[in-house]
Amino acid sequence: MKGKFITIEGCEGAGKSAQLRLLTEYLTEHGVEFVSTREPGGTPVAEKIRAVILDADNKGMADECEALLYAAARAEHLKNKVIPALNEGKLVICDRFIDSSFAYQVYARGLEFSIVERANFFAIENCMPDATLFLNISPKDAFKRKGGADKKDRIELEGLEFHERVYGGYLKLCERYPERIIKIDCSGEKAQTHANIIAALRERGIIK
Amino acid sequence: MKGKFITIEGCEGAGKSAQLRLLTEYLTEHGVEFVSTREPGGTPVAEKIRAVILDADNKGMADECEALLYAAARAEHLKNKVIPALNEGKLVICDRFIDSSFAYQVYARGLEFSIVERANFFAIENCMPDATLFLNISPKDAFKRKGGADKKDRIELEGLEFHERVYGGYLKLCERYPERIIKIDCSGEKAQTHANIIAALRERGIIK
Repeated sequence: MKGKFITIEGCEGAGKSAQLRLLTEYLTEHGVEFVSTREPGGTPVAEKIRAVILDADNKGMADECEALLYAAARAEHLKNKVIPALNEGKLVICDRFIDSSFAYQVYARGLEFSIVERANFFAIENCMPDATLFLNISPKDAFKRKGGADKKDRIELEGLEFHERVYGGYLKLCERYPERIIKIDCSGEKAQTHANIIAALRERGIIK
Repeated sequence: MKGKFITIEGCEGAGKSAQLRLLTEYLTEHGVEFVSTREPGGTPVAEKIRAVILDADNKGMADECEALLYAAARAEHLKNKVIPALNEGKLVICDRFIDSSFAYQVYARGLEFSIVERANFFAIENCMPDATLFLNISPKDAFKRKGGADKKDRIELEGLEFHERVYGGYLKLCERYPERIIKIDCSGEKAQTHANIIAALRERGIIK
């Protein structure tokens, strides 16, 4: 495949949406052809699968079934949206991908790592991201930052604990896949985080 | 698991329904506790998944996605219906199971064997059938038999060719899994086929 595939990961409140906007603006300004997508992606089939996952009573759904459904949606999204764009030489930016499955399903919800890994690597074995940008800020720090600006923030203590498990999962994934996942320092202003992302992508040769 | 798990396979017109009825009557008469089920099974989630497979435009659906969806429905059916019954010591009889995926998806429709195999063995690795009864009659012979009794039979030449590929697939599966799959001679009357099934299950120690 001629194009490069990058994914963006992070906890709630890490600033993914803002950074995706800044990144796509940068790419547009620099004449880079890209496709910006997110899971479950824009295909009708993937959306129907997502609806099953959301509609069903998850407490009763078999773990293997859930993992296989996410993998099925991912396989569909890859084949019918991501891979065609990569074959056209485009840069593909995907908001959340396999690491979200690990962070949320395994580390936060308690599914076995091997179940999620096997279901997913079957679906995507030939299309792993060239690089994954992990916006590295803890939910607690993100909460403080957001709390200062928005008094209506609804993150409760229990919710925060869940998101801390997600964050801990992401840190473990950074150790497990050090060559693929790039920790992006998010402690500064948005513009500084954006500059960190551009520097990381340049260093990897993904953009010039 | 205390119970035994048997599956019944065969082409359209092989007489599965009639043999299932005779078998369950026999088990009832002999006081054997059993559960008779069929894929996609009776669970709400498995039925929703089935609906996605049937509703979606299959021509556009990625092969991997389709295989993963069937596997997801199977995982759900196993965990929430088959395995609980086996744990209660019941005999479980399932109308169609993994061999139908191989025969129809791989041999008749052309998906890669490894795709279907990997999606399914992930879903069911610890719950393969103790025995699989393959009602061994070719679609051509089944067509002749049925054609004699019912002039309204709608199997067309093209349909017949598809079903012959399914049958050829089943024969290959018999060679691949000789210890699990039992070929049942269906050339005689229904009562003789039933007797062949009872003899095969006794020989394997599945029923007394």
